[in-house]
Amino acid sequence: MNGPLSIAVIENDPDRAALISESLHATGNVEVHVLTGAADLAEHITGLNPDVVLIDIANPSRDMLEAMAMATGPLERPVAMFVDRSDESLTRAAIEAGVSAYVVDGLHSDRLKPILDAAVSRFNMFSRMRTELETTKRALEERKVIDRAKGLLMKARGIDEDEAYALLRKTAMDQGKRLADVAQALVTTFGLLS
Amino acid sequence: MNGPLSIAVIENDPDRAALISESLHATGNVEVHVLTGAADLAEHITGLNPDVVLIDIANPSRDMLEAMAMATGPLERPVAMFVDRSDESLTRAAIEAGVSAYVVDGLHSDRLKPILDAAVSRFNMFSRMRTELETTKRALEERKVIDRAKGLLMKARGIDEDEAYALLRKTAMDQGKRLADVAQALVTTFGLLS
Repeated sequence: MNGPLSIAVIENDPDRAALISESLHATGNVEVHVLTGAADLAEHITGLNPDVVLIDIANPSRDMLEAMAMATGPLERPVAMFVDRSDESLTRAAIEAGVSAYVVDGLHSDRLKPILDAAVSRFNMFSRMRTELETTKRALEERKVIDRAKGLLMKARGIDEDEAYALLRKTAMDQGKRLADVAQALVTTFGLLS
Repeated sequence: MNGPLSIAVIENDPDRAALISESLHATGNVEVHVLTGAADLAEHITGLNPDVVLIDIANPSRDMLEAMAMATGPLERPVAMFVDRSDESLTRAAIEAGVSAYVVDGLHSDRLKPILDAAVSRFNMFSRMRTELETTKRALEERKVIDRAKGLLMKARGIDEDEAYALLRKTAMDQGKRLADVAQALVTTFGLLS
């Protein structure tokens, strides 16, 4: 990690905000930005693009919790949420919203660091898995569409599979496009015309 | 959830084990099994097949932590690990080993329930994603192998793609096998013969 760790702290109570900020500074090289849960929170977070978000809400409703998760982007960066009270369904909602750490009644200064560490590790693991899933899904979709395009070309031009593939590949190279995009355009066009 | 929640508690200290067990019983309908971190832990866990595992280790080494994770099967069931002390790299190791909750200095009776709730939700979300990733990967691999088998048949028998596919499909049906398995056998055989 180069430079300070940038942490956005979402806290409406100024006294608690000061305490959290102090505890975070004690853990090392950090840059703390205190925000409130205002309506333009999402914009602030986007502008700030912090490394980690720490949210403290005393007693969240499910709507509040989901709005907070939405505004802070738990798929873009680790979000740790501290609440005073929760129940099973709120806990589940927070975790399914993508929050990397959900801590009930555990906002104590000496425990902030391990919780943030865990949130960062959790986020990184989840993020790698999500990327792998997206890549695999895309590869499968592209393979399907290339197969469909090959089949259409084989029928339309009476050529064999290798020729159809070579034709798609040449077209992609000539146009400076990806093979899958040329195949998709062809499948779409055939769909419109048939 | 039907019946009691079965929880395996791994705890070497009998006093702490009694306290944890008592706290867990206070949270509702649970069945608590106290185990020690002995060499045959993995067998005990497999035999017991608990709904959740709770591990308490005062001051784990990295090896101990990984052995515990391995023995308790964090990909099969939610595992919550409580430690008294940790550092960033131990925390990361625990989370990458698949532990659903990693809690530093936070084993307090009134906080057990929300932590176990979070571990269960986290495990379920992760598990769904892992299943989706495996299914997608398998679909992609199968598609590749079916394509390869089709290509081999087309060349070997001078037939077109549809005929090659129909032949594979018929063979699979006649033999009561999956198309992908027939395709894989064909690709393997061609590989051995060429």
